[in-house]
Amino acid sequence: MDTDRIGKQIAFVREIDGLKHVLRQSYLMNGSRRENDAEHTWHIAVMALLLQEHAAESALDIGKVVHMLLIHDVVEIDAGDTFAYDVQGHADKWERETAAAKRIFGLLPADQQAAWTDLWLEFEAGRTPEARYAAAMDRLHPVLHNFYTEGKAWRAHGVRVDAVRKRLAVVAEAAPALGPFVAGLLEEAVEKGYLLP
Amino acid sequence: MDTDRIGKQIAFVREIDGLKHVLRQSYLMNGSRRENDAEHTWHIAVMALLLQEHAAESALDIGKVVHMLLIHDVVEIDAGDTFAYDVQGHADKWERETAAAKRIFGLLPADQQAAWTDLWLEFEAGRTPEARYAAAMDRLHPVLHNFYTEGKAWRAHGVRVDAVRKRLAVVAEAAPALGPFVAGLLEEAVEKGYLLP
Repeated sequence: MDTDRIGKQIAFVREIDGLKHVLRQSYLMNGSRRENDAEHTWHIAVMALLLQEHAAESALDIGKVVHMLLIHDVVEIDAGDTFAYDVQGHADKWERETAAAKRIFGLLPADQQAAWTDLWLEFEAGRTPEARYAAAMDRLHPVLHNFYTEGKAWRAHGVRVDAVRKRLAVVAEAAPALGPFVAGLLEEAVEKGYLLP
Repeated sequence: MDTDRIGKQIAFVREIDGLKHVLRQSYLMNGSRRENDAEHTWHIAVMALLLQEHAAESALDIGKVVHMLLIHDVVEIDAGDTFAYDVQGHADKWERETAAAKRIFGLLPADQQAAWTDLWLEFEAGRTPEARYAAAMDRLHPVLHNFYTEGKAWRAHGVRVDAVRKRLAVVAEAAPALGPFVAGLLEEAVEKGYLLP
């Protein structure tokens, strides 16, 4: 067995430990502290498995979805987390993230670098059923965190319900049965003052 | 669509946020703080995908391995993390964890409760190729954390190399190519004083 190959794989494992230091805007559901990207990623991978039956695409490759989700935020080790409703931060997001993908996936053996970069690009492009369903999980998750912390991050940033509705359109599209659930949650969030009308 | 079913699934998503509060003995690779179970779980799910080519069993169901790993520590929300080398803590571990599985997986719709409990039991029993390979990832991971933090948790607990070797036997068995890598790492750890001879 190729020692150099294992060495590269372990170097990648070591490098991505950095994801545990990337803080998101969302708070843990008990409000005690902000969540990091590694925690978020674990949570949405479980959600993808759990809610799979609601996917619009019945022939969804769920293994691909989970793989995609597990690595989709790795670029933020270099590029940082950009808050979903931060227009300015999004201006150079793509440039920062592609450079990060090059460096971080570049630690892998060449075949895995190519395959994992492709998976990340597929997620980012959001065109396949797998990428759409993965995006639905990624976007639904912080909404749950916000709802159960009485809108802690939403209130801190003065987020409006329309912006969240727009961002969550992919949920009803990729997992139709979750559409009414999300709509009800956002309505309740506005009623309770967690989210601006 | 069954609103009650989605309600149960979301209640489970909310409940397992608690995994982010379960601290392990291992430190993050930069030594700054202890790792939690959600972070650990994310990391080993990525490792399982990354190192799959080294699995002894070529027909491994990797989707099952990843699902197993993503939920294998959920019981620790109630039962707490038991340090691998804590003999006393292991005495009533099984009792505590089965009670936790009953309560936490019991939040799910009945069919998912049955399937996810079975997956957890399969992991715990460690008899199938999927459970063995999953255990290899789960055990290799804290060794990397210990090695790259110069044995921070090993030194704190006075851990001996023989105990680690015994615990890691499953790595060489379930992923033979990783055997020499692990053996070399432990040798170096002893030489450098990270781990007691």
